[in-house]
Amino acid sequence: MALTMPVVFADRHDGHDPGGEVWIGVRTPATEVPERAERIRAALAAAGATIVPARPQPDAAVLAVHDRALLAYLASAWDDWVTAGYQEIQDRVVPYLFPHPDLLDGVAPGMPASTAARAGRHCYDTMTLIGPGTYAAARAAIDAALTAADLVLAGARAAYACCRPPGHHATRGGFGGSCYLNNAASAAARLRDALGGPVAVLDVDAHHGNGTQSIFYAEATVLTGSVHVDPGAGWFPHYLGFAGETGGGANRNLPLAPGSGDAEWMAAVADLAGWAKARGARGIVVALGVDAAEGDPESPLRVSERGYVAAGRTLGALDLPTVVVQEGGYDLQAIGRLVHATLAGIEEGRR
Amino acid sequence: MALTMPVVFADRHDGHDPGGEVWIGVRTPATEVPERAERIRAALAAAGATIVPARPQPDAAVLAVHDRALLAYLASAWDDWVTAGYQEIQDRVVPYLFPHPDLLDGVAPGMPASTAARAGRHCYDTMTLIGPGTYAAARAAIDAALTAADLVLAGARAAYACCRPPGHHATRGGFGGSCYLNNAASAAARLRDALGGPVAVLDVDAHHGNGTQSIFYAEATVLTGSVHVDPGAGWFPHYLGFAGETGGGANRNLPLAPGSGDAEWMAAVADLAGWAKARGARGIVVALGVDAAEGDPESPLRVSERGYVAAGRTLGALDLPTVVVQEGGYDLQAIGRLVHATLAGIEEGRR
Repeated sequence: MALTMPVVFADRHDGHDPGGEVWIGVRTPATEVPERAERIRAALAAAGATIVPARPQPDAAVLAVHDRALLAYLASAWDDWVTAGYQEIQDRVVPYLFPHPDLLDGVAPGMPASTAARAGRHCYDTMTLIGPGTYAAARAAIDAALTAADLVLAGARAAYACCRPPGHHATRGGFGGSCYLNNAASAAARLRDALGGPVAVLDVDAHHGNGTQSIFYAEATVLTGSVHVDPGAGWFPHYLGFAGETGGGANRNLPLAPGSGDAEWMAAVADLAGWAKARGARGIVVALGVDAAEGDPESPLRVSERGYVAAGRTLGALDLPTVVVQEGGYDLQAIGRLVHATLAGIEEGRR
Repeated sequence: MALTMPVVFADRHDGHDPGGEVWIGVRTPATEVPERAERIRAALAAAGATIVPARPQPDAAVLAVHDRALLAYLASAWDDWVTAGYQEIQDRVVPYLFPHPDLLDGVAPGMPASTAARAGRHCYDTMTLIGPGTYAAARAAIDAALTAADLVLAGARAAYACCRPPGHHATRGGFGGSCYLNNAASAAARLRDALGGPVAVLDVDAHHGNGTQSIFYAEATVLTGSVHVDPGAGWFPHYLGFAGETGGGANRNLPLAPGSGDAEWMAAVADLAGWAKARGARGIVVALGVDAAEGDPESPLRVSERGYVAAGRTLGALDLPTVVVQEGGYDLQAIGRLVHATLAGIEEGRR
C-alpha cells in the first residue's frame, strides 16, 4: 500500500559527515552517516511517498527549545576551528576539556578564550564531532521537523521528517550522542503552541531521549515518554533515562533490559501511547529511532520489523495529529524498510 | 651552598607513565614523565640534600581533602578497565562521556554502570590518563607531601616533597590536568590542623591551582593564592583562575599576561607572600611549579632562574614553617636546577 503521509527531506543533511567518533580516545568509524538518510528516502520513495523539501525556518523557532549560546556556538564552531589552525591537527572539532561539576564546584562556567577549550563548553562527549557542514545539516534537520509539523497543522493527519543528524540527545544548552539540535523538541514546541494544549513526544529510539526529556522536564504542556535500553545496564546516555525520572508526571521512562524483543518493547510502546492519551495529548511527536531492531550495531534490543509495524499501528490508533521525526537506526540494510514499516503501521492504525 | 632542608621522595612515582595525553582527540606525547622527578632528585642530591623516603600515610589523610568516591574510583579504575577488556582497545583509561551540566540539567550524577562511561565520572579532561601504576604513584605523592609536612611539624624549618604526579588541579571530587590527588592540599590540611591557625598555599606554578582553590574556597583557615598565566588569555584550566574569585578574602588569584617575565612574576609572588603574612598565616605550603620558566613547553611565561631564586628568597623571608610541594615543570634540561634554585632561595631568604 502506498504511503500517504508526506515525507520531508533536507538535502543539506549530506554536508554533515561526522568523520568518525572519538571513543575512549580512539577514533572509530561513524555510524551516523549520510547514507542513512538516503536509504530512508529511497525506501519511502519506492513506497510511493511524496517527498517534500524542508522549508527554511527562522532561528526563533530553534530558540524555542535551545539556548542562544548553543546555537551561536554551533554556528561558528567549525569556522573558528579552521581560523585557529586546529584543522591541520584534527579534521573535526573534538573537545578535550569539559565544565565538569567536579571542576567547577558550583562556579558558573564562562566561555573559554581558547578555541580548543571552547569545544567542550556545550558538548558532553567526544563522539559528536563537528565538520564543515555539520551546522547547516543540523539546522536543516530542524527545518525538516518544523516543516512536517506545519504540514500536520495545515491538515495532514501525519507527516514524517527525515531528520539527520538526529536530535533527541541535544538538551537546551548542550549536545552529544551524535545530536546537535533537538528536532523532535522543536516540532513538539510548535505543535503545542498551535494546538493550545498538551502534546506528547513518544521516543521509541533504542536510547533514552534525554535531551527531549530535559528540555520539557516537569512541563505539563509537553509530555515526554521514552522506551529504551536501560542505562543502568551500561547504555548511553548512562546518567539519565531511569524510571524514577518522572518530572512530576510529565515524563515517563520505560527502560528495557538488553536483549528485550517485540513483546517487551511493544508493551512499552502501548504503555506510552496509553499514557499520552490519558494525559489528554492533542498531538504527538514520534521520535522514531529504528535502532531497537535486532541486528542494529548500536543497541542490544531485538525488535523485529513486525514489531515496528505493530508499534506504528498502536501509535496510529491514537488518531491524533502526528509528526514523526527520525532519530537513530544504524543498520544500513534495514533502516529504509524499518522506517517504512513504522509509517505504514501508523497509517494502518488510523483506519 | 649545600641544601639543608630535607627532600622527600617516593620511588613509586615511576610506576606512573601517563603514556601520553588525548588532546582534541589526538594522542600526543606526555610531558609529565617519570624523568622529571629523577632529574629533580639528581640535582638536589648533587646539591648535598638529604633524601628522605616518603612514609606511608593512612587513607584518612587523603579523605581530609578528597571525597571517598574519588579515592575509590582512582584505586580501582585501572583494574576495572582491564577486567572490562578495554585495555586491548586503549592502553590507558581515557574518558569519552562527562556529567556535563548541559547534560545533567540539575540531575545529580550517579556512577555509570559501564566501565568506559565511568572514566568520565570524576575526570574533567581527556589528558589525564590512568595506567597500571597511576594510583600507587598518586597515593605515594600524597605520602611524600604529608611526610614533608610532618618533618616541618617536627621542627624542620622547611621541607620539600618531590611529588609526582602533581596535584594542584585535583579538586575534592575531580581530577584532570595531569593531576589525580592534591598533594599541596593534603599538606596544607595537616599543617592547619597541627598549627591551629590559618595556613596559606602559595601556588607559583604557571597554571592556576584550581583544585587547591576549590578544596579550600572561602575557608579562612587555609588561604589559597596563585600566580599563573591568565586563563582569560586561553590557558588551562580555562574556566577558573580569574582575579574575581576571591572566596570572600580567603583566595587570591593573580593572572599574568602571556609573555610576562621576572618583573611581573616576582611582584606577584611578593604580593602573595605579603597577603599571606597580613592574613596571619602560621605556615605555608609552596605549590612549586617551575613551568613559568622561559623555555618550558607548557607555558608562555618567561621567568628566569634568577627569578626563581628571588621568589624563593621572598617566600623564605616570611620565616614560617614551610612545606614545598612539587607541581609542574616540563623542561627536562632545566627542571632540576630551577627547583634547586628556588629551594636555595628559600634557605637564603631565612637568614
